[in-house]
Amino acid sequence: MTSVPTSPGAPHHDRPTLAVVGATGAVGTVMLSILSQHADIWGEIRLIASPRSAGKKLTVRGEEVEVVALAEEAFEGVDVAMFDVPDEVAAQWAPIAAAKGTVVVDNSAAFRMDPDVPLVVPEVNPHAARVRPRGIIANPNCTTLSMIVAVGALHAEFGLRELVVSSYQAVSGAGLAGVEALRAQLKLVAGTELGTTPGDVRRAVGDDTGPFPEPIALNVVPWAGSLMDDGWSSEELKVRNESRKILDRPDLPVSVTCVRVPVITTHSLTVHARFENEVTVDRAHEILSTAPGVVLFDNPGAGEFPTPADVVGTDPTWVGRVRRSLDDPTALELFVCGDNLRKGAALNTAQIAELVAAELRGNS
Amino acid sequence: MTSVPTSPGAPHHDRPTLAVVGATGAVGTVMLSILSQHADIWGEIRLIASPRSAGKKLTVRGEEVEVVALAEEAFEGVDVAMFDVPDEVAAQWAPIAAAKGTVVVDNSAAFRMDPDVPLVVPEVNPHAARVRPRGIIANPNCTTLSMIVAVGALHAEFGLRELVVSSYQAVSGAGLAGVEALRAQLKLVAGTELGTTPGDVRRAVGDDTGPFPEPIALNVVPWAGSLMDDGWSSEELKVRNESRKILDRPDLPVSVTCVRVPVITTHSLTVHARFENEVTVDRAHEILSTAPGVVLFDNPGAGEFPTPADVVGTDPTWVGRVRRSLDDPTALELFVCGDNLRKGAALNTAQIAELVAAELRGNS
Repeated sequence: MTSVPTSPGAPHHDRPTLAVVGATGAVGTVMLSILSQHADIWGEIRLIASPRSAGKKLTVRGEEVEVVALAEEAFEGVDVAMFDVPDEVAAQWAPIAAAKGTVVVDNSAAFRMDPDVPLVVPEVNPHAARVRPRGIIANPNCTTLSMIVAVGALHAEFGLRELVVSSYQAVSGAGLAGVEALRAQLKLVAGTELGTTPGDVRRAVGDDTGPFPEPIALNVVPWAGSLMDDGWSSEELKVRNESRKILDRPDLPVSVTCVRVPVITTHSLTVHARFENEVTVDRAHEILSTAPGVVLFDNPGAGEFPTPADVVGTDPTWVGRVRRSLDDPTALELFVCGDNLRKGAALNTAQIAELVAAELRGNS
Repeated sequence: MTSVPTSPGAPHHDRPTLAVVGATGAVGTVMLSILSQHADIWGEIRLIASPRSAGKKLTVRGEEVEVVALAEEAFEGVDVAMFDVPDEVAAQWAPIAAAKGTVVVDNSAAFRMDPDVPLVVPEVNPHAARVRPRGIIANPNCTTLSMIVAVGALHAEFGLRELVVSSYQAVSGAGLAGVEALRAQLKLVAGTELGTTPGDVRRAVGDDTGPFPEPIALNVVPWAGSLMDDGWSSEELKVRNESRKILDRPDLPVSVTCVRVPVITTHSLTVHARFENEVTVDRAHEILSTAPGVVLFDNPGAGEFPTPADVVGTDPTWVGRVRRSLDDPTALELFVCGDNLRKGAALNTAQIAELVAAELRGNS
């Protein structure tokens, strides 16, 4: 089958075949762990990576599976493929897989803003996954994903009118190199008196700051991604554009500042959300405490608010510090945490793949 | 002299006597260092602290000075006193000093919102320092001070209509105990694989998290201060109320979320500022590059944006990442850094004291 499958004409598969492309990376590793934890709906799970990783054996569902090299033949008989590879690799290989009839769920930025590729968060816009003219479904950026489930639940009730967002992004958002950079820098600054005179941390760390433009230990760095027009970073525009697309509000005002912080994993965000209608904290609490994929953890008097140290390794979007603006009864302030490798990447990709599998089996 | 002095009736002092109350604390130490660096306009500099520190010798202007105990007599002959002591100590002792004719410049929260006490930032509202019915001038909170010089310069030109602020606050904002807590926790997490499973950092750190409600190493904590009404923290309300008072805009909408980060010293803030009139980045750059007390450092293509590691130990407010909102031509996004112990506390207090000294000398 070389044409792109659409839902009505797709064959029914009792146990569809899944491929994981980029199985050896930081997100790929979490994908395999999630596949081992979730209900086992898949037939074969094929692991695909770059030729230099071919032959390596990885464990999924308790079994060792040998990694095969990325090639057109690797997609033979694959119903659904989850891609976590660099943008340019995805841009080349996702259409090749799709042309062989594979539904591609892609975690790169290559297709997210393509009008013929849906951008899906199962808790927010699951219906969008069914309309995929190119046979490709895109998974949002990890920063967008770390907040959008909570924001989407509030939007469904109150109707969003504006978002102002600041991020506190973990180093693993920049991959294993980001984690290694922070770990190495922490060894250099721990047990010292550094962090009190201009440039002392920089001198201790030296010129090799890893994937970050400045030292990240004992520091925060207001930069993520590449430079776009008018001083914006690519990461900031991703959060803006992807939020608009997921929420189906192409004209939503969204202002974002992305800042890297010395946390290993779990992105945090402050969200100032203005709605069409008046809001109350009580009603926001009700919505957030029943929204799928959200944990409300909001009782500061009892020391309850989410932090990355609590949230890392968990699936939901955690929300705390819910306050109504003192000046505007239509605005809420939130503090949101999400594991950027799980919900921010591997988990959401797996959830989309599971949506597609249910559709292919004809039972959704 | 027991009545409170007012400008017209105040005596002229060629070299007024200064007292530093709380000279042995984190901010007091920086005050002495600043007094040693600034033009030497003072006659005697008297160092005052709690009775348990009396007799200790500290260096200021290159000379050893013995600390005297806080007592009414300690203010005899003192023209200006800079206080950095807990709120309740300031509430008790500032009026005692003022009753002896001393102009008190107080860095606690005790008097900041008192309508009879001006709240002064010399670059923004120096005129306010002259009207002090209680003989007391308040110094703003360190978080407010870390951004208000930059925001005030833009306000003077464009007219503020709204502020949405998120903070990235250093641990020294919680005093030496905050610094010690982060240093101790860094030793426990450096060289480990912690930060990847729920609660692993918390278990390594144990129950003693110092002045913070959660571990601060490898973490961010969305809480500073004490719990106020409707879920707000005292720190968030300080930034809101103090910004309004300093800018003389009592009705300004201000939304703040305060978050602690693992940085030793220098608070950072993201600022979404909406103005009465249309703004341009070029004009904002012109204003910020000429505003007293501000350094514009904004060329991300060349890797130029402020970070705490660059800014710590310096006097100005550093501003970068200046962008105009993509949806609203009247709004700017900024990233601002200021040393919370210098401009955020000791420096601004010293600048106010110097304003008063100039007034007492009659040459302003």
